Order: sequence, then C-alpha cells, then structure tokens
Amino acid sequence: MNPRLERLHAYPFERLARLKAGAVPPANLPHIGMSIGEPQHTPPAFVLETLRANLDRLGSYPATAGLLELRSACARWLERRFGLPAGSVSEDSMVLPVNGTREALFAFVQAVVDPGGKKSRPSLPTVAATPGPTTLDPLDKKGRPSLPTVATAPGSTALDPLVLMPNPFYQIYEGAALLAGAEPYMLDTTAATGYTPDLDAVPEAVWRRCQVLFLCSPGNPTGAVLSLEYLRRALDLAERYDFVIAGDECYTELYLDEDAPPPGLLQACIAAGNDRFRRCVVFHSLSKRSSVPGLRSGFVAGDPEILKRFLLYRTYHGSAMPVPTQLASVAAWQEDSHAVENRRLYQEKFSRVLPILRPVMNVEKPAGAFYLWPDVGGDDERFTRELFARKNLTVLPGSYLARESAEARDGSGGHGTEARASSAGHGAVATGTPGVRFNPGAGRVRISLVASVQQCVEAAERIRDFLRQDWAG
Amino acid sequence: MNPRLERLHAYPFERLARLKAGAVPPANLPHIGMSIGEPQHTPPAFVLETLRANLDRLGSYPATAGLLELRSACARWLERRFGLPAGSVSEDSMVLPVNGTREALFAFVQAVVDPGGKKSRPSLPTVAATPGPTTLDPLDKKGRPSLPTVATAPGSTALDPLVLMPNPFYQIYEGAALLAGAEPYMLDTTAATGYTPDLDAVPEAVWRRCQVLFLCSPGNPTGAVLSLEYLRRALDLAERYDFVIAGDECYTELYLDEDAPPPGLLQACIAAGNDRFRRCVVFHSLSKRSSVPGLRSGFVAGDPEILKRFLLYRTYHGSAMPVPTQLASVAAWQEDSHAVENRRLYQEKFSRVLPILRPVMNVEKPAGAFYLWPDVGGDDERFTRELFARKNLTVLPGSYLARESAEARDGSGGHGTEARASSAGHGAVATGTPGVRFNPGAGRVRISLVASVQQCVEAAERIRDFLRQDWAG
Repeated sequence: MNPRLERLHAYPFERLARLKAGAVPPANLPHIGMSIGEPQHTPPAFVLETLRANLDRLGSYPATAGLLELRSACARWLERRFGLPAGSVSEDSMVLPVNGTREALFAFVQAVVDPGGKKSRPSLPTVAATPGPTTLDPLDKKGRPSLPTVATAPGSTALDPLVLMPNPFYQIYEGAALLAGAEPYMLDTTAATGYTPDLDAVPEAVWRRCQVLFLCSPGNPTGAVLSLEYLRRALDLAERYDFVIAGDECYTELYLDEDAPPPGLLQACIAAGNDRFRRCVVFHSLSKRSSVPGLRSGFVAGDPEILKRFLLYRTYHGSAMPVPTQLASVAAWQEDSHAVENRRLYQEKFSRVLPILRPVMNVEKPAGAFYLWPDVGGDDERFTRELFARKNLTVLPGSYLARESAEARDGSGGHGTEARASSAGHGAVATGTPGVRFNPGAGRVRISLVASVQQCVEAAERIRDFLRQDWAG
Repeated sequence: MNPRLERLHAYPFERLARLKAGAVPPANLPHIGMSIGEPQHTPPAFVLETLRANLDRLGSYPATAGLLELRSACARWLERRFGLPAGSVSEDSMVLPVNGTREALFAFVQAVVDPGGKKSRPSLPTVAATPGPTTLDPLDKKGRPSLPTVATAPGSTALDPLVLMPNPFYQIYEGAALLAGAEPYMLDTTAATGYTPDLDAVPEAVWRRCQVLFLCSPGNPTGAVLSLEYLRRALDLAERYDFVIAGDECYTELYLDEDAPPPGLLQACIAAGNDRFRRCVVFHSLSKRSSVPGLRSGFVAGDPEILKRFLLYRTYHGSAMPVPTQLASVAAWQEDSHAVENRRLYQEKFSRVLPILRPVMNVEKPAGAFYLWPDVGGDDERFTRELFARKNLTVLPGSYLARESAEARDGSGGHGTEARASSAGHGAVATGTPGVRFNPGAGRVRISLVASVQQCVEAAERIRDFLRQDWAG
C-alpha cells in the first residue's frame, strides 16, 4: 500500500465518536447535533425540480469539462457576486465543474504538487501582481531584495515541498498535502492574529518551499473573512515565491453583514491587474449556498494554465458530474434570491443565539460561515463530553480541527513535520508563547448553526444552563 | 505542477477527433457513432423512479462508506451472480460504493502503489492460494524454487514498481499507474494469445516488481473472457510474488452465451479456498449492466485489509455517492430481469451484425462485452478516416487503445518505459515477432454496438459496402 496513507490523521468525527462513547445523555432531551458543518435548510424546490426534469439525461457519460452552460452559469455568477468585469471569467478556459469542494481540493493538490520540489510555474513573473510603475522586478516595490530564481536541484531536500494552511483547518487540506508527498505547514489563526494566518510571520525559507497556500474565507471554523488587501498581499507573495493559492470560498455566500459580502481571491486578482488570475484557483460549492450538501456540486475557477493541467488530471481522476446534476446546478447558480433567503436564516440564528450565550461564555460574532468558535474556558474535550452527557447536545472539540504547532517559529521547515508528528488535541492550553507547543484549537469548540432556528435557540439555552450549572472549566 | 502529468498520453478520443478533422462525410447519411463504449439502451424506469422518489435526500452529506443497504445489495448480487456461498461477501468490510469504475480504478492505484517499491502485504502468505496439502510454502506445489522474501531496500531501483495490464487496454489503467509513480508494463493480447494476457510469458524479474495486475474480463476491446483456471493461476502468482489483482469486471453482465456467464475473480478466490479474497479487488458498475452510464454508480469488493486502507484514502479523495443515487443503485442491483433484457439486446445485435460483416472481413464473435474487434486488413487509422469520410460512421482505431511493445521480452523492466515512451498507433503492422516493436491494436478497429439494433444493422451494411467498394487495405 501507499505508505503516505500511514501519515493521515484520524478524522475529527472518528475522534468525537470515541470521545462520546460510554457517555449516557438524558433520555428526556432530544439530541441536537451541532458538530458537523452540514447545511440542513430545505433545498430549493426549483433546483430539485430541474434535477427531476432531467433524469432522462442519465443515459450518457458526462464529459469531465462539463457542459458549456454550466461553466457559463458559474462564470457569470462569479462576475456578479464579486463585481468582476463582464466576461472577465472565461467559461472556455477558466472554469471546471467538480463534485463538491472536498473532491476538488484533494485532487487539485495531487495535480499541482511536485514532490520533487520543482515550482509550479516559471519563476520569472510576466504580470505585475500589483499595478504600479513597471520595473524589471515589479514585485520589488516594498524594498525587499530581489531574489534569485529558486534553485530546483534534484535530490535536494532543501526544497522539499510545503503546503501552507490555516490552523485550525478543514482536514482535507492536510490529507491532500500528505498524500501528494508534501509537508503541511501550519499557520496558526488565533485571537491574536484576528483569526487569520499571519503571512508576515512566515519565514522566507518557508515561502521558498511553498508550493500551495490554502486560504479559506470565510474561515472554517473561525468565520473570519480575509480582506481585499490581505488577498493582494498573498498574491504578491505568490508571485515573489512562485506558488499557487488555493482559495477555499465555499462559505462565501454566508455572511452576517448584508452590506459587506466577503471579497474573493479572483476579485483581488482583478484589483491587482492580474486579469488572467495567474497562480490562483478558487473553490466554490452549492452545498452551503443552496443547502444541497448531498448534490455534490461545485466548481473551480482561475488560472487557465493551471486548470488546463487540472482538467488533464481530472480526465483520469474520473469525477465527472452527472448531466442532470449539472443542469440543476445551472439553475442554482443563475438564481440569487434563494441564497439571500438561505443567508437570512443563518443571520437570524446568530441574532437569536448570541444574546443567550454571550452572558455566560467568551463568544464572538463571526463575519461569515455558520459556526460559533467560543472559548470554553477549559478543556475542550471534557467540555464536549460533559455537555453531551448532561444536555444531549453534540459540538466538536476545537483541538480536533487543529494540530499542535509553534514549538519555535524558526522557519527551518521542520515545523510542519513536527506539528504533524505530534498528537494534537488533548486539551493543552493555548499559550501562544513562542517556543511552547500549543494547539490553536484547544480550549474552544465548534458549534455549527445548521439546525432550525428553534433548535439552535434550544441548543443555546442548554449550553447556557450547562455553563451555569455544570461546568467548572 | 506534478511532473507525472507530463507522462500521460492523449486520450484516444482526442486523437480520433484530430484524425477525423477535415474529412467531410456525405450529407445524406446520418452519423452513426460506434467509437465510444457508452451504453445507449433506455435506462430502466424503476431505477429512475427510485432516484426521483428520493431526491429529498440531497439535504445531507453522503458517507464515503455508503449506506449499509447499498453494500448489502452489492454483496448479495455478487453472491447470486457468481454462485458464491451465502454471506461470503461481508457488506461490513468487503464492499465499498464508488462513483463509477473510472474514478475507482484510478483512486485504487493511487492508494495501493508504493512508489518506493515496497510490496503491498506481508510477503509470507498465511492462506494457501489453492487447496491442497499444507506445506511451509504451499505455493511451491508446481515445483518452482521457493523464493526468498523480496528485498525492499530504499533507493534501490531494482524494485521500482510495475503495474501490469493488458495491451490494448482501458487507458485509465495506464494513467493511474503513471500518476501513482509506477511504470506500466504491457501484456499483449493478440489472436495468438487468445486475446488474453499470457501470464506464463511474463519474466520473473517483472513479477518481482509487480505491485498491481489489471485483468479485464470480459475484455475491452477484445471481449475475451478469462476462465476460472486462468484466474486461479493469477491468484497463485499474486501470492507468490506479493501483488494485488485489480479485476475490472464492468462488462461481466454482458455475454453472448446465456449458459456461460463469465466467471469472476472472487469466484476464483472461493474456488481456491481464499475466502477472505486476499490480494483481490473487483470493480463493478451499473453503467453497462443497467444502461445508466450517467448515473456514476459502481462498487468495489474484495480483500477487507485492502478496502480498509482504500476507504481511508477515499475519505480524503472525496467521491462519496449522493444518497438518492445510492438508493436507485440498491434497486438496480437487487433486480436481475432488466439486466437479462439488456443483455438480450446486445446478443441480438451480434446475431444481426456478424452475418453481414463476416463475408467481407476477418471478425470473430466475442465471448462478452459489446465490441467487435475486427482485423481490417490494413492501416486502422486510414480505415477509420476513410470509413468516416465515405459512410459517416465513426469507429476507433485499435492502435489508439494500445502501446507499441515487445521489442524484446527480456524482462529487464525497461520494457514498460520503452512502450510508454514510444508513439503508438501510426498504423504499424502487428507482427508478433520477438525483437520487433509492434502495436497489438494496429490493423484493428473497435466497433461499439451501443446504438439501437436497427442502427447497428445499418452501420454493418455501410461497413460491408465500404469494404466492397472503397477499401483496398
């Protein structure tokens, strides 16, 4: 068997099942599940109707590239949603359908990473990442020394590939990196960093080895949104150090302030004059936008040179989308009002739940997604287990979504390996002190507001009562 | 980008499109497509009805392992179809749903192959491959010298992994091997070998490096069926040389003699006393059995130790089957009469088409699948292009489905590399002479009998007329 499989971590929900084993919740309370990020709103009737009306199209193999009308619907939605110039996203070369973002994120890393350490694209940029006076090295405007082309000597371990990702994270990022033969490198997202990765804290030696940077905005589990300026800074770094940015934007339609939709990575590209989306690929999904997690429909968009190679990979990978699913997806991407109503329901849940929880725990209103990420003032595993035992309510320990890291931010590159090799999530207290290992998810839990408004309110009341009556921290 | 992508060959249909470009077929004849192996019979109404009735189940994420009822339906079908003892296929540990066999064949090789050359399982067998007197080395019964444990020294190139496959083949086998970091090794299937790979012609040095052996029965494109004895011989070799057999049985429900259904690999395991299906995984699909190629539904079954690791891989790989598709698949696997009627239609096509073609070309009745694989008595590319230009009928050049090979069967292992690196399919005449490179698909075309009976008859008449009037070979 492939020995890289040995490096995979247990999935958080396997660990959660073990944690809950043996605990007996009160029989008089119905169970409320808030651990899984699975949308539970009613799927839009017109999407199911379109699917139903096209089931006779199951008699033919779907093409990996998908139907032109699906790629067009996705391109037009991107332009509409992110205020991109009309026609700036080419349905011919810049969009590919995928069977959900999990499949796509995983396959993308397999297709992109060179385990031998060679970089993704020619290292001399031909497009300025930020508009401004063109010089021989347009990226040099911040006064950093111009870097020589990164050496790619075969057999050198100095350039063993890294995949950078937020920590805590969606675990597929880590598994995709490991199975592609790269080392995951964790970027802690804590209250101190505004729940976003601190790009300026990443050592240059790490950037030189970086092949893929995962960004997730709004973030899972923090709900933090990356600003346009942040994304442009990431673009600069991608140009300078020759890596690809994988923008996981599956939560981008779920935000709390109707006047401030989260910006997207392609939007940052356009703002920076990078109108071919060079080095950038974004991942979108109908699971959250249209509450159809079981449909398995999403798309990737961005750099046509990368997507061309990704399409080649996908021809073998074999995850073409069934035609009826494609046609239902066309309907879903073309229609916005159902997404507004879907978002409104989440906004209502936050409005109802936060006033109940704020008096009893340290919890902030996120900018987007559908999670609460409170500090429980103690061991997150014990909190989760006791809450289940007392209130028949399941949340997810934050430490299960992260890895221990930050033993010493020396950038030697041993970091990722160390983080991976350690056993995370046994309730270690997050200290943030350099030189001390800590798990940035420890002491927090992830609460998914996916159930109905009424159930979420009921859950908040149970958590409040638990905190008042049962929890000593 | 992953440099292994550079090693992939153009897909046969891309090459076919280039071959046909510029040719102008007669406007008065409607096009008949016979190049793609895409079933076109009407999907069974009850399968679509079950799908339709369960679309409300799209509101939840499917689990990678699938529903127990789907795994049970698959297990019971295997037992019924192959005459296995009741309960011999465990739905708990020996079956996994997949989104079609393409996705599964590809992912399986990624999960199984160790590019470092270590073997798949402990090399000392604990189960006798064939019933008989137990000795310290039960595989030694044929008088071969007992082999030492295969060395797995890291860095040794002597054990760089090979994936063995029939030639011609389903191109996914080759791409999966290349992307997994293994070298494809081609086993020519020609009239001289009865259109099956000659296992006894494989040098021991090749077996020692073999990690996966692909077998396809009934074969694509030859339609040849592997006997139970043949499969047991393959099992012996798998035990002796410590490799995995991937049995592609997606055509197993399509056969011409109702009294002789093709045997399956798991059936051979049971016959050999290997009741845990050690080292064996089979790939099945509803695409051909139930004429629902667009449903993307199949399953794998076999060795629980291998499937356990494959399930772990698939958790990240992310190709879980939507729940409505799973439920429609349960209905399809539980019902056999529609598969009988489906098969009858193919049998009728062979009965109608062969009498038209036999007088004018060298074409044999296959044992299974839905292809004709005739010798066209000349260059297969030119035949294909001229047939299209004269008769508006598309077939697939046989050379596109195979690689040049057999420069010298010395087993040095350079073989696979050479075959890959060469440019196949330019109409080289197959000679079969050792030391002479040849493409075992050259001089033949693949004709898919997927259209209606009437269209297939019309196509046969056009081919007959073309051969009589237009083709000089």
